[in-house]
Amino acid sequence: MTYDFYMPARVIGGEGAVLAQSALLSRFGKKCLIVTGGTGAVKSGALADLQKALDKEKIEYMIYNKIGENPLVTSCREAGVIAAEFGADFLVGIGGGSALDAVKAAAVFAANPDLGSEEVYAMNYKNEPLPTVGIGTTSGTGSEISAVSVLTDTKGVKRSIKGDFGYFNLVFADWRYTASCPMSVTVSTALDAFMHAAEGWLGPKCNEPAAAFAAECLPKIYYYLKKFLADGTLPDDEGRKVLYHASLSAGFTLNYCGTLFPHPVGYILTEHYGIPHGRACAAFFDRLMEKAEKYAPERAQSLVALLGDSSENIIHTLKTLADCSGIVITEERAAELIKRWHSNPRNFDCTPGGYTPQEAAEALVLLSK
Amino acid sequence: MTYDFYMPARVIGGEGAVLAQSALLSRFGKKCLIVTGGTGAVKSGALADLQKALDKEKIEYMIYNKIGENPLVTSCREAGVIAAEFGADFLVGIGGGSALDAVKAAAVFAANPDLGSEEVYAMNYKNEPLPTVGIGTTSGTGSEISAVSVLTDTKGVKRSIKGDFGYFNLVFADWRYTASCPMSVTVSTALDAFMHAAEGWLGPKCNEPAAAFAAECLPKIYYYLKKFLADGTLPDDEGRKVLYHASLSAGFTLNYCGTLFPHPVGYILTEHYGIPHGRACAAFFDRLMEKAEKYAPERAQSLVALLGDSSENIIHTLKTLADCSGIVITEERAAELIKRWHSNPRNFDCTPGGYTPQEAAEALVLLSK
Repeated sequence: MTYDFYMPARVIGGEGAVLAQSALLSRFGKKCLIVTGGTGAVKSGALADLQKALDKEKIEYMIYNKIGENPLVTSCREAGVIAAEFGADFLVGIGGGSALDAVKAAAVFAANPDLGSEEVYAMNYKNEPLPTVGIGTTSGTGSEISAVSVLTDTKGVKRSIKGDFGYFNLVFADWRYTASCPMSVTVSTALDAFMHAAEGWLGPKCNEPAAAFAAECLPKIYYYLKKFLADGTLPDDEGRKVLYHASLSAGFTLNYCGTLFPHPVGYILTEHYGIPHGRACAAFFDRLMEKAEKYAPERAQSLVALLGDSSENIIHTLKTLADCSGIVITEERAAELIKRWHSNPRNFDCTPGGYTPQEAAEALVLLSK
Repeated sequence: MTYDFYMPARVIGGEGAVLAQSALLSRFGKKCLIVTGGTGAVKSGALADLQKALDKEKIEYMIYNKIGENPLVTSCREAGVIAAEFGADFLVGIGGGSALDAVKAAAVFAANPDLGSEEVYAMNYKNEPLPTVGIGTTSGTGSEISAVSVLTDTKGVKRSIKGDFGYFNLVFADWRYTASCPMSVTVSTALDAFMHAAEGWLGPKCNEPAAAFAAECLPKIYYYLKKFLADGTLPDDEGRKVLYHASLSAGFTLNYCGTLFPHPVGYILTEHYGIPHGRACAAFFDRLMEKAEKYAPERAQSLVALLGDSSENIIHTLKTLADCSGIVITEERAAELIKRWHSNPRNFDCTPGGYTPQEAAEALVLLSK
C-alpha cells in the first residue's frame, strides 16, 4: 500500500459560500461561460447565486444550458467553442455529474477549439484547458473532486477521460443546492455515492486516505438508504447536508481507487434501458459482494462491519432501491451487449477475483431473476 | 460544519518513489538547493536516493545542511540567499519537521533575498516563493502535507507561518526513510502525530475530511504508543510504515483544524527545558482531556471510543511517554513564562471551554505533581 494523494481543487464549503467567497472567482479573469443542464441550476438557486457573485465581481458571463443527462461529447465541444468565441477566461459548471463532467471537457475544447469531438478521449491536448469552477447540485457524482469526466461518445457509448485537467480549480460546496432534488434523483445519486465508496473499499487500490474517506461516508449514506426504503420520504435539511458531504468523501475514494465492474456494466443499463446511473451501478452490488466474499473476504467483512447491518439486509436495501427487476435481458441479448468489451476494462481486472464479459452477461440475465 | 478542503501537494508514496518518479523533479528546473539537517538525511538513505535521482535527471544541486532542531529563521534566510546566489530553480527539503518547515521558509527567502529574517512572519511576500519538494524522514510532523512552518525567531521564540506558500509542490512519501530513527525520536514524533489528530478531533473545526483522517490514524498510532510503553522496542518495518502513513493522515487533520493549547504551551517546554516537541505537547494531554470531558463531552467520549481503551489508560500512556515529571516549575517561574502571551493565541480560544495564560501557568506547575 502506498500513500499517494493528489486532489488540488480548492473546496470551499458552507451555506452561502458562492456569495461570501465571490472574490475567489475574479482570480480567474473577467469573462466566463456558465455550463449547465438548465433546470437543476435554476431550481437549486445556484445559478442565481452565481450570477449575483459574478455581477458583484464585474465578471461578464454567457450561459450554455444544453447539457443533458449522460452528457454528449458533442455538446461539450459546442460549449467549448462558444466559450472560445466569447473570449472566456474560465468556465463554471453548475449541476450534478452531467454538467460538472461536461464543463471539464468544455474547458479542454475552449482552449483547443480545433479539437474534434472524439479527439478529447486521447487526453493529449496542445493547449492547457481553461480554469474551471464547479458548483454541485446533487449528492452523488463526486465530480467536484475527481479528475474524471464521463462523456457519451458519438456512438452513444459512455467513456471516461481522466487527468490533471479534470480537477476543478475551485469548488463551491453548498449543500443547500441539493435540497430541490426530487426523490428519484436523491435515491439514485445516493446509490451512486455509496457505490463509489464501496467499490473503492473492496478494490485493490484502497490506501489510507481512500479508506479514511470511505469509512467516513459509508455508514452515513447507508443510514439514509435504509431510511429511503423504510419511509420513502425526502431527507430533511440535516440529511441533505450529510448526504452532500458524504458524496464528496465518496468522490475522494473514487478519485484514487477508481471503480469495479458495476460501473461499466451499469453503463449498459443506462444506455439501453434508461436506468439512472446510480441505480444502474447498485443493481450489481449483490454480484460484487459475492465476488468480494470469495476473493477478498476481509474487505467484504469490514465493509459489512462498517455499515453495521447484516450482509443480507445490505444487499436487500441496495437491490430494492436499484429497482431493475422489470428489465428482462435474454442470453442472446446479453451476448450482444457485452460485445463492447474487446478486452477487459480496468474495472473488470480490479474486481476481487477478476471479472469477465461472460460474467457481465450472466449478471445482466440474472437481473430480473 | 462546512466541507472545506485544500491540500494541493502531489504526494507520491511507496518504496523507491524518489528514484522511480525522478522525472517529476525535472518539471521544476535544472538547478536545486537541498536543505537538510545533516544526519537524518544521510542515515535514512534519502539524500543518497535524491542525489541519484538528480544526477539521472541532470539537475545540478548544492546542499545546505545546517538546519537544526526547532529551525532558526536566520538559518532559513541563509539557505534562501544561498539558493538565490546559486540560481536554484527549486528547493528540496529532506528531514523531519525541522528541515521540512525550514525549506518552506528558505523558498520564500530564495525568491525574496532582500527580506529580513523577521519579515518572513508578515506572510506578505513580493515574489512568489520557489517551488519546493519535500522528503520526510520522521513519522510525526506531517509538514509534508500542511501549509504550516514553525520557525524559531531571533529572540528564540517558536512562531509559525502558514499560507499557500507553505504547501510543497511535490512530496515523496517513502516510509523506509523513517527506519533509521532512534527510539527517542520515534516515540516523540509518534506523540506529535497523535496530538495533531487528537487536538484536531477535539477542536471546533473538525469537519468531515479532518475527522476521516483522524479516525483513520488515531487507533494505529495509539496501538504503537502502547507497544512502546509495554516493550520499549523499535517498531518493525510494518510498524514504521503504519506510523509514517499515520503521521501524514494526522497532518491532514492538523492542516485544517490547527492545534489547541498543548502546542503553544508545549513550545515552552521545548524552548526552556529541551523537551522534544512531541513529548512537550503530549505532556498536556491529561489537561486537554479534562477540558474536553467538561466542555465537549461527546467529542471526548468519541475519541476514547476510537482508541478502544479506557480514558485512564490513554492518559497514563500519553503522560508516561511524554515523561516530563522531572521538570519542576515554580509558580513564580510559570508566571514569568506565560508573559509571552499578551493576548490569547488562537489555539487557546479553540480549546473546548477556552483556555487562558493563567491556566497554562497552572498546567506548567502541575507537570511534576
